[in-house]
Amino acid sequence: MNKPSIPKGTRDFSPIQVIRRNYIFNTIKSVFEKYAFLPIETPSMEKLSTLNGKYGEEGDQLLFKILMRGAKFEKAFQKSVDKNTSNDNHFSEEALRYDLTVPFARYIVQHQNDINFPFRRYQMQPVWRADRPQKGRYREFYQCDADIVGSNSLDCEVELIAIINNVLNSFKLHNHTIFINNRKILSALIDSCGAKEYFKKITIIIDKIDKIGSDKVVEELEKNIPIPNCAALFSELFSLEDSNEELINWLNAKIGSDDQGKIGLDELNYVVSSAYSLGLGNVKVNLSLARGLDYYTGSIFEVTLNDYKIGSIVGGGRYDNLTQVFGQKDLSGVGISFGAERIYDVMNELNLFPKQLITSPNYMIINKTDSSINAFKLADYIRTKGSTCLLYPDNHKLKKQMKYANDNNIQTLLFISEDFNENMSVECKNMVNGIQKTILLKDL
Amino acid sequence: MNKPSIPKGTRDFSPIQVIRRNYIFNTIKSVFEKYAFLPIETPSMEKLSTLNGKYGEEGDQLLFKILMRGAKFEKAFQKSVDKNTSNDNHFSEEALRYDLTVPFARYIVQHQNDINFPFRRYQMQPVWRADRPQKGRYREFYQCDADIVGSNSLDCEVELIAIINNVLNSFKLHNHTIFINNRKILSALIDSCGAKEYFKKITIIIDKIDKIGSDKVVEELEKNIPIPNCAALFSELFSLEDSNEELINWLNAKIGSDDQGKIGLDELNYVVSSAYSLGLGNVKVNLSLARGLDYYTGSIFEVTLNDYKIGSIVGGGRYDNLTQVFGQKDLSGVGISFGAERIYDVMNELNLFPKQLITSPNYMIINKTDSSINAFKLADYIRTKGSTCLLYPDNHKLKKQMKYANDNNIQTLLFISEDFNENMSVECKNMVNGIQKTILLKDL
Repeated sequence: MNKPSIPKGTRDFSPIQVIRRNYIFNTIKSVFEKYAFLPIETPSMEKLSTLNGKYGEEGDQLLFKILMRGAKFEKAFQKSVDKNTSNDNHFSEEALRYDLTVPFARYIVQHQNDINFPFRRYQMQPVWRADRPQKGRYREFYQCDADIVGSNSLDCEVELIAIINNVLNSFKLHNHTIFINNRKILSALIDSCGAKEYFKKITIIIDKIDKIGSDKVVEELEKNIPIPNCAALFSELFSLEDSNEELINWLNAKIGSDDQGKIGLDELNYVVSSAYSLGLGNVKVNLSLARGLDYYTGSIFEVTLNDYKIGSIVGGGRYDNLTQVFGQKDLSGVGISFGAERIYDVMNELNLFPKQLITSPNYMIINKTDSSINAFKLADYIRTKGSTCLLYPDNHKLKKQMKYANDNNIQTLLFISEDFNENMSVECKNMVNGIQKTILLKDL
Repeated sequence: MNKPSIPKGTRDFSPIQVIRRNYIFNTIKSVFEKYAFLPIETPSMEKLSTLNGKYGEEGDQLLFKILMRGAKFEKAFQKSVDKNTSNDNHFSEEALRYDLTVPFARYIVQHQNDINFPFRRYQMQPVWRADRPQKGRYREFYQCDADIVGSNSLDCEVELIAIINNVLNSFKLHNHTIFINNRKILSALIDSCGAKEYFKKITIIIDKIDKIGSDKVVEELEKNIPIPNCAALFSELFSLEDSNEELINWLNAKIGSDDQGKIGLDELNYVVSSAYSLGLGNVKVNLSLARGLDYYTGSIFEVTLNDYKIGSIVGGGRYDNLTQVFGQKDLSGVGISFGAERIYDVMNELNLFPKQLITSPNYMIINKTDSSINAFKLADYIRTKGSTCLLYPDNHKLKKQMKYANDNNIQTLLFISEDFNENMSVECKNMVNGIQKTILLKDL
């Protein structure tokens, strides 16, 4: 028989991994809650009609679709045979969720009458993508999202920046930079060189700057965008000094007189200067930040660690029209998403998890014949006092039980003596220093 | 455009629902941890070969299978066309998990070298079944399992009974009964009337007793089991008085001399009498308890509420051969599973959720033009002190902001005055009694 295994790109989590992952989730959650965000959860499966077409062509192909069952499957198969076509969409009506944002937009529209806007929701659930698995990229992974929907106020952006700082500082990841840009600025810049119709193509190219460098980006723009000014513009942009002031001055000269450009600049200025007033000094304007997703319309963010190359660990932005596709217009929102899996990898690598996240119980009671009722009572007493206690279930040799305690890093062993009930005391062995003594129950 | 919706049998959870569900999960989790159980998590998808054939024919049909993608799908389709057969298994290699027990057995075998046995694990994750949805039955629902694997000791059973009591008492569901039986006893009883080969069929029939009553069960046995003594035996059994002593005496007479029967009786006796010694008086022998799943080989449990008809809210039992199918023999285990969804429904109905599980933040800061930096600072101060605080993001009319606070059950509103920085004080309005006064920050 072959050793059993799990699907490609998925993972089992051992106890210490679960405990560390939960530490990350709970920390993020407690910050979200302090900022008055409320949790919602949506089903793992959504109707295919809800998801299809929302993530671009590539995204559609990465959906995990649910196969029809029984008569429905038979019918779909027969139909495909008759028509002599084989479209996998005909064999499925549901798919696993690809992110938390589209299900959230669907949720808002579906439950709009029960929601008080502005609505601050957080959501921490797994998503599934049939991506090619590689280091740090999985087919099932968690997203941790917070969004404020139903307000145009840029103060929402500022609050999200404060949340990012708060969460990352809790993880001792102090040395991070929050990069910020604005889609309206990008849009005005691209318009300014007459390349409007290539907006999407250009953003996809400049989004690669971290991977391929600015020279290659300019090269690709020259090769793929048939507007000569475009590559020149971005070449100029990439040569600017890296200070928020210089970038904003340059933008003012380039697009300050353009309607959309001016709005974008004002937005960027407001968010950056508010962040500075609040002492959030690690916010940096980055005009080559584009973000892959189509639905962003205003501020966009991405956060990286200064001393550790792992790519972006938080991303987000403002979207003005996300719920429109489900029938609800004029509901602007802004959100961020923490990449919990990457944060886990960094914290693991840098040894940043708190030492008290352990898997070993406080006490183990040694199993002796005929003492099991007393063992149960003792364990019960310890648990009522708030400690964790393991009852060794089998009457094995002491050596074997001690080895088990050792392998499980248990620090204190308890031996029940025959006069347990009269004396209310117990033999107690400290596994670290080896000292063994009799202790009254109340002193445990 | 149609209002968007979600797949049949799935649910969205609103903030208060998520908070109440998490209360249930966290309570169960904290009891499991006190008893030294460790968490693991497994992927939502398992290989179809891991799941197929483990849940009986009916179970196989209820699996949610993942549709193959791209070239694999094309190939599968072409093959099916060529062979002129349409088996949905040819279009899928993975399926969503159906329970937590089979993935756990797979986990144990896969990671056996990293596990110290006896291994106590808990697991709380969703499972998926393409069942016909109805009240209280969903296609995506949580299971909360605790298992001890690698020990034959009946003390494990006793500990699980203590856990059940502990958890249900935490939920104020004191009035419950833990029904217990033993598969070896059932087996010996059925052997004793010569109906051995009908074991599975008989257990399925008597398992229906809660739904159809004992008369109908006897009738069905008469009709479907061609061994005349069988129906008579169970008819006699059902007529017994409902006390543990009488049932055990009757069993002693019937199967006490049978090898397997005697072992089963000893096991039952040990567990019941230990539970009594520990003051767990709500344990009752129930000889018609059979449990649907094939893999049980010893003790079996089911828990119901005495005053509330909702079916079983906890189930479990001992299995001696569960990991054998994945290649690891001689590893006995015993486990329980809490039906969190049913527990939620009961607690909701009986109004048992703690009052402090609310969704409203402690404070809301009223938005006034030009005070936003101070508002951020005030909010930050409040959050550092451990309270939750909502910053109203838009400069709307006061009336609209007050209505929002009211709709969200916010108890205290804060107004930032112009001399906020000098005085370190803030206007504070109690929304319950309407009283408004100036309060120093440090007195908040």
